[in-house]
Amino acid sequence: MREHVEIGQGRQALRHYELADVAIVPTRRTRSSKDVDTTWHIDAYHFDVPLIAHPTDALVDIPFAAEFQRLGGLAPLNVEGLWGRHANAEEELAALADVANTDPQAAMRKLRELHAAPLNVELISERIAKMRDSGMTVAVRVTPQQARELAPVVVKAGAEILFIQGTVISAEHVATDGQPLNLKEFIGTLDVPVICGGVYDYTTALHLMRTGAAGVIVGGGENLQAASMGIGVGMATAIADVAAARRDYLDETAGRYVHVICDSEEVFTSADVVKAIACGADAVVLGRPLAIAEEAAAKGAFWTHASAHPRFPRFEVEGHMAAMFGDERIDDGAVTLETLLHGPSTAADGTQNFVGALKRAMGKCGYTDVKQFQKVALAVR
Amino acid sequence: MREHVEIGQGRQALRHYELADVAIVPTRRTRSSKDVDTTWHIDAYHFDVPLIAHPTDALVDIPFAAEFQRLGGLAPLNVEGLWGRHANAEEELAALADVANTDPQAAMRKLRELHAAPLNVELISERIAKMRDSGMTVAVRVTPQQARELAPVVVKAGAEILFIQGTVISAEHVATDGQPLNLKEFIGTLDVPVICGGVYDYTTALHLMRTGAAGVIVGGGENLQAASMGIGVGMATAIADVAAARRDYLDETAGRYVHVICDSEEVFTSADVVKAIACGADAVVLGRPLAIAEEAAAKGAFWTHASAHPRFPRFEVEGHMAAMFGDERIDDGAVTLETLLHGPSTAADGTQNFVGALKRAMGKCGYTDVKQFQKVALAVR
Amino acid sequence: MREHVEIGQGRQALRHYELADVAIVPTRRTRSSKDVDTTWHIDAYHFDVPLIAHPTDALVDIPFAAEFQRLGGLAPLNVEGLWGRHANAEEELAALADVANTDPQAAMRKLRELHAAPLNVELISERIAKMRDSGMTVAVRVTPQQARELAPVVVKAGAEILFIQGTVISAEHVATDGQPLNLKEFIGTLDVPVICGGVYDYTTALHLMRTGAAGVIVGGGENLQAASMGIGVGMATAIADVAAARRDYLDETAGRYVHVICDSEEVFTSADVVKAIACGADAVVLGRPLAIAEEAAAKGAFWTHASAHPRFPRFEVEGHMAAMFGDERIDDGAVTLETLLHGPSTAADGTQNFVGALKRAMGKCGYTDVKQFQKVALAVR
Amino acid sequence: MREHVEIGQGRQALRHYELADVAIVPTRRTRSSKDVDTTWHIDAYHFDVPLIAHPTDALVDIPFAAEFQRLGGLAPLNVEGLWGRHANAEEELAALADVANTDPQAAMRKLRELHAAPLNVELISERIAKMRDSGMTVAVRVTPQQARELAPVVVKAGAEILFIQGTVISAEHVATDGQPLNLKEFIGTLDVPVICGGVYDYTTALHLMRTGAAGVIVGGGENLQAASMGIGVGMATAIADVAAARRDYLDETAGRYVHVICDSEEVFTSADVVKAIACGADAVVLGRPLAIAEEAAAKGAFWTHASAHPRFPRFEVEGHMAAMFGDERIDDGAVTLETLLHGPSTAADGTQNFVGALKRAMGKCGYTDVKQFQKVALAVR
Repeated sequence: MREHVEIGQGRQALRHYELADVAIVPTRRTRSSKDVDTTWHIDAYHFDVPLIAHPTDALVDIPFAAEFQRLGGLAPLNVEGLWGRHANAEEELAALADVANTDPQAAMRKLRELHAAPLNVELISERIAKMRDSGMTVAVRVTPQQARELAPVVVKAGAEILFIQGTVISAEHVATDGQPLNLKEFIGTLDVPVICGGVYDYTTALHLMRTGAAGVIVGGGENLQAASMGIGVGMATAIADVAAARRDYLDETAGRYVHVICDSEEVFTSADVVKAIACGADAVVLGRPLAIAEEAAAKGAFWTHASAHPRFPRFEVEGHMAAMFGDERIDDGAVTLETLLHGPSTAADGTQNFVGALKRAMGKCGYTDVKQFQKVALAVR
Repeated sequence: MREHVEIGQGRQALRHYELADVAIVPTRRTRSSKDVDTTWHIDAYHFDVPLIAHPTDALVDIPFAAEFQRLGGLAPLNVEGLWGRHANAEEELAALADVANTDPQAAMRKLRELHAAPLNVELISERIAKMRDSGMTVAVRVTPQQARELAPVVVKAGAEILFIQGTVISAEHVATDGQPLNLKEFIGTLDVPVICGGVYDYTTALHLMRTGAAGVIVGGGENLQAASMGIGVGMATAIADVAAARRDYLDETAGRYVHVICDSEEVFTSADVVKAIACGADAVVLGRPLAIAEEAAAKGAFWTHASAHPRFPRFEVEGHMAAMFGDERIDDGAVTLETLLHGPSTAADGTQNFVGALKRAMGKCGYTDVKQFQKVALAVR
Repeated sequence: MREHVEIGQGRQALRHYELADVAIVPTRRTRSSKDVDTTWHIDAYHFDVPLIAHPTDALVDIPFAAEFQRLGGLAPLNVEGLWGRHANAEEELAALADVANTDPQAAMRKLRELHAAPLNVELISERIAKMRDSGMTVAVRVTPQQARELAPVVVKAGAEILFIQGTVISAEHVATDGQPLNLKEFIGTLDVPVICGGVYDYTTALHLMRTGAAGVIVGGGENLQAASMGIGVGMATAIADVAAARRDYLDETAGRYVHVICDSEEVFTSADVVKAIACGADAVVLGRPLAIAEEAAAKGAFWTHASAHPRFPRFEVEGHMAAMFGDERIDDGAVTLETLLHGPSTAADGTQNFVGALKRAMGKCGYTDVKQFQKVALAVR
Repeated sequence: MREHVEIGQGRQALRHYELADVAIVPTRRTRSSKDVDTTWHIDAYHFDVPLIAHPTDALVDIPFAAEFQRLGGLAPLNVEGLWGRHANAEEELAALADVANTDPQAAMRKLRELHAAPLNVELISERIAKMRDSGMTVAVRVTPQQARELAPVVVKAGAEILFIQGTVISAEHVATDGQPLNLKEFIGTLDVPVICGGVYDYTTALHLMRTGAAGVIVGGGENLQAASMGIGVGMATAIADVAAARRDYLDETAGRYVHVICDSEEVFTSADVVKAIACGADAVVLGRPLAIAEEAAAKGAFWTHASAHPRFPRFEVEGHMAAMFGDERIDDGAVTLETLLHGPSTAADGTQNFVGALKRAMGKCGYTDVKQFQKVALAVR
C-alpha cells in the first residue's frame, strides 16, 4: 500500500523517495556486460542507448546533437533559446562562456538580454533544415506556451520528434486571457511523435498519455523550482507512479506503450541513470553531467531551458557544479562526449562512462535489456 | 491517523514535519499565473498579497511599513523596541547598522543597552499617529507582557490591527505575582481585530480562537529557542494542527473564521511561503528574508523582536544569514522590497520574487485562490 | 508499542531516538518562569538546580566544586584522575592547559603519563577532607574497577554521595581472574547514597536499582565509544526506558524512588537539558558545556574521566569543541560558571544560562516543577 | 516482518540499513575483556582475531601478510595485481607511493599502465612459493574472471585458502561468448577451502553456499560502485540476510557451517567491525583503515583490487581518506599494524586498536565469544 502520513490533524501527505534514497540489489545470476542490450526506440526511431541530452543551449548545438546521436543517444535542439533568436548564436554563446567563468552575474544579465530578443521563425526553420541535412534524427523542443505557434513550423521544417516541455504540464491548460492549450486536440494535428512533460504524478501522466503523446517526461528538468515554488516530488516515486500510469494506459488501450522519460536534476551520475531505469524509466535525460563535455555549446557554463523565463532566470558555471561533487572528483578538465558516454572513465564517482556503468549494473544484476531491468530488486534507506 | 511513536517504554511522541520535509505536487490542470488571485483580508482590511513583515526594528520603520503596504502586504510596527523607547531611534539604528557588520558583539551589547531604556507611552502614540497620518493601515505589535498596559494606548492612538505576539502564548497565563493576562476577557475590551500567538498545537490554538482573536500566529518567529529551550514543532505539522482547530472552531461557532498566520524561521524562501499556505496558513510572515531589502530599517542587520528579552538577546548580521544560503546565492547586494516581493528575480533560490513564485506555484498546481490552494496535494520525505 | 524493525531476515533492532530528534511542545496555559521550581534532592541532600558537573579533572577541582554547589548544583570530584595521583595536581593541570592549545598531541601524551602514576589513597583522603572542610556536600566518583578498594576509603574520609561510574556498568560483573564486583552486596556495605552507571536499557537499570542504588546514570558520559565500540543508544530512548524501570521498581518496592541521571555527550545546550528531563531524567550531567567556564580546572581543555583508561585516552581542546557549535556561536571567550548556569546569556544558542532556559521552557509549557515536567508533550522528527 | 515500502504505485523496495544506522546495546552482566575469546577458524586454519586484510596491492605484500598473521589475522595476496604482473613490483609500488601524494592523477595513470601488463603465471607461482616458505598460512585472491585459469596454478603453488572475489558474484555466471564460470562444478575440483563473493542478498548467498564454498563475502569491498552503478545495499541488512542464508543452509545440510565475511567500505572504525559481527559476520575485512599502517605496501596510498578493472580504475591517497575522518582524527602519521590491531590507541575515533575495541565491546555487552556476540541487542536510528 502507498505510504500516506498525516502531517497534522486531517492533512495527509504521500511519502516519496528520491533516486538518492534508492539502491539496486543484485539477486540473480550475473551476466557478461557484453551481452547487455541498451537499445531504445520511440516510434520508428531506434537508438543504441536510452540517453537524451537536455535541450538547453548550454549543451546542444547542431554539432553536439550530431555527435551525441553518433554515440547512440538523442539530443533535441531547444528552438526557443538563442538558436531561435540570434543568427550569430555561436558568437553570443562563445562570449557568454568567456564571461561565465569570471563574472557569473554579468553572464546572467547577458543571458537575460539574449532571451529578450524575439523568436525568429525563419531562423528556427533554417536551424532545423541544417540538422536535417546533416542526416541525424531531428528532434526539437518547444515550450507549451509556444507550441501552438511553433510546432507546425518546426514539423514543416523537418522535425521528426517533437518535445513539448515545460516545468509542469497538463493535458489541458486553463487561461482566461488568450487561448489555452488543449494537448489532446493539438497532438492529433501533428504528424510526428510528441514527447511532453514534465509531470510528477499518476493522474496528470495518464491524462497526458491519453492525448496521444508518444512519451511522457517525468520531472521538470531541474530541481531549483523546489527552492522557488516548493514543487519537488522525489524522482523514484514520480517515475514509479508514471510507470504505473503507463501500465494502466497500456491495458486501457490494449497495447499502446507510452515511453516514460526522466528529466531531473537528481540525475548526476551513472548510478542515477541506473536507478531511474530501475524505477521504471525507458530513457533518461542528462543535463548538467554533460556540461563538462568538450562539445558542450557553452563550454562548461550551464543553464536549463527554463532559464528562458524572463522572471526566473537560472545560471550556473561549471565551477559551481563541480563543487557539488566534492572531493570525490579527481579530474578537473573537460572530457569528450565519447568518454562521458562510453568511457574509459578516469573518475570513480559515476560522472563518466554512463553507458558502460549501465551495462555493468545490468549484467551484475543479471538483466540483458532495459525493459526487463525495470524489474530489478530495489532497496531504500 | 496521527503518527505517534514510543520513543522509550511508555513514553510517546508525535511525529512532526518541517516545511523543508514537505513538497507540493501538481496533480490538476495547469492554469495561467495571470489568473491567480493572492488577495487576503482580515476583518475589513484587504491586502493584495498574504504576506506580513515580521514586526522587528531590524526591518520595520514607518517608511518600510508604507512601502510594504503599497506592495500589497502588511507591516506591523513593534512599539516595544527602539521606536517606543528612543526619540532618535533612526540615528540609533543607523549607528547599530554601521557597527553590526564590523563588530557583531559590540552591536549586540548596544542593542541590549537600547532595550534597557524605558518604554515611552507618548513616543509610542506619536509613532502611531505618524503612521495613521501617512494613510496606511496601522498595525502594531505588543508583547503579552505589556499588552494590558499598551493595548489601550495604541488603539487610542490609531492602531487598526493589533498583534499580541510572544514566543509562546496561551489564552490564560498563570502568575503568582502580578496580574496574569486573561486574553478572553482582555480581547473583548478592544475595538480592533487582534492577532495573537505564537502557538504550536491544536489545543492552545483552539483556546486562543475562543478568546475572540481574529487571527492566530503559528510559531514563535524564530527557531533559535529550539537551541535554548527545546521547543520546536515542525511548522508543517503545527500549521496543519492549528488549521484543524480553525475548522473545528468554524463549526463550533457556525461560521467564525479565524486566520492562521505562520511566523517561523523555517520560512526562508518563496517555496517555504508556498508550503506554509499549502499546509493551511492564510498568510505568512517574512522576517530574515526581508533583511536584504534596501528599505530594511537596520540595513541588513537582523534580529527578531524576541531580542528585546533582557536575558535572551539575539543578533545576527546579514553576512551570517547569507552564509546559511550557501553557494546557491548569486547576488550579494541589497535589493528593493519591490523586487523581493514582485521580482524580477536575479536569484534562482527562492529568495526573491516571493509573490511571483507563489502565483506560479498556484498556477502550476491548478489553483486560483489562496484558500483553495490549502488543499493542494502534498508529499513528504 | 515499541518500534522494532527487522534489519535483515530474522534480525531485529529497536528503533531509538537521540535528544536531537526530540522537541517539546507547549500545550498548556503558560506560566511565569518566576513561579518555576527547579529544586532537586537525592536522599537528604537538596539542590536548587538539577544539574551535576561531569566528574573529570578537566572541570572539577575543589574551588570549582564549591562554586558549582553555591550556584545550586552538585560537582563530584573524580578521585582516580590527577587529584588522586599527584600531590601537585594543580601545577600539572596548569601545564597541561598551556600545552593543550598549542600541541594537542603532546598534551595527550602528558595526560597518559599523568594517569600512569599510581593512585595514592592518602592523597585521596586529604582531598576529600579538604572538600568536607569547605562545608560543601562532598560527592566523589570512583570507577567500578576500583570501587571495592576505594569506596571504603572515600566514605571514611568524608564522602557523602558516591558515584560509581564507568562507561557501561551492570549489577554484577563477571571476571574469571580477580574478584568481580557484585554491586548488590557491595552497596549494602556502604553508609552513603550511591549513584551508579552508565546504563542504556531497562533491564540493566532495573537490576542496578535492585542493588540499592540511590540513582542510576543513563549514558556513558561520552559518545566517542560509539566510534570505537559501536555502543550508542540514543539518549531520548535510553532515558525513557530507564525511567520505565524506575516506575516499575517504585511499584515493586511500594515506593522506593531511584533517581535517573543523564550523562551523555548528546547534552550540549540548555535545550538538551530540557529534553533530557522531558524524557524522564531527574537530573542532568554537564560535561563539555562547562569547559568554557573560567573556573574549569583545565582552563578550556576537556576530557572525560574515561580518558583514564590506559588504552583509550581521549583529549580535546576547547577550539575543537567550539568548532562543533559552528557559526551560531558568537562569543569567543571564557565565561563564569554563574553566567553559564544563571545568565544573562550573550549567546542565542543555548550554551549559556542553562537554568534560565530550563525555567523558561517549563513556564512556556505550563509546568512548575521538574517531576511534572517529565510529562510534557513530545514531538519527534 | 521485513519492511517493504511502496516507493510508487506497484513498485516495492526493501528497507535496508547501513552499519552506521546500527548501534549495539549492552543489556547483560558485564564481563572482563580479558575473558573474551576472539578466535576464528575456517576449515583447519585457526586465527586469533576475526580480521582479514583486503587483498589489494596497496596493502598486502608478503611481509605485510606475515606480520598481519603474526598479529592474529589473515592477509590474502591479490595475485592479479602488480605482484602477478611485474617482477619488480616492490620498486613500482615505491614509485607509485611517491607520486601518489603529490600528483594523484599521474599515480592513477601509472596504476592503469601497471595493470595493463599481462599476468605472469610463473611469477604468481614464485610469489606463492615465497609465502609458503615463510611459514604463514598461504591465502590468495583471484577474480571470478580468472579463477578457471589461475585457481589450479595457485593451489599447485601452495595456496591453502582461495578467495574468489569480485564486485558481485553468483553461483552461475552467464555469458554468450566464452565459457561462463559455474562455481558449483568448479569449487568441487579444488582441494582447498574457497571463500567467494561479494553478495548482497539471501538468495545469491544461499546459492553460493550450495557450491561448496567455505565462506561467503558480503559486500563488494568498496562502495564507490554505488556512485557508478547504484548498487549499495546497507551492510547491516546484507550481513543479516546472508547470515539467515547460513542458518537455513546449516539446517538444509544438517550441519555445514559456511562463514560470513564482511568486506565493505562501510567498515572504517572498530565500531564498524563490532557492528558487522553483531549483525552476523564471522569475520571482517579491513581495507582503507589499514592504509595508515607503516607496513602497508603502498605507504598510505590506497586502492581496492577492483581498480584492476581497465574501465573503472579507482585511486585514492591517504590524505583523501583522512579527510573523511574529519576533525576527530588527531594523529597524522603512520602507525604500526600492531598498534592498529592491538593498541594502545592514540586516537579516540575507533581507527586504532581494532581488537582491543572488539574485546571491550564484547565484554561490556557480556559476551565471551564471537559467535554468541552475533546475538547482542541492536538498536537503529
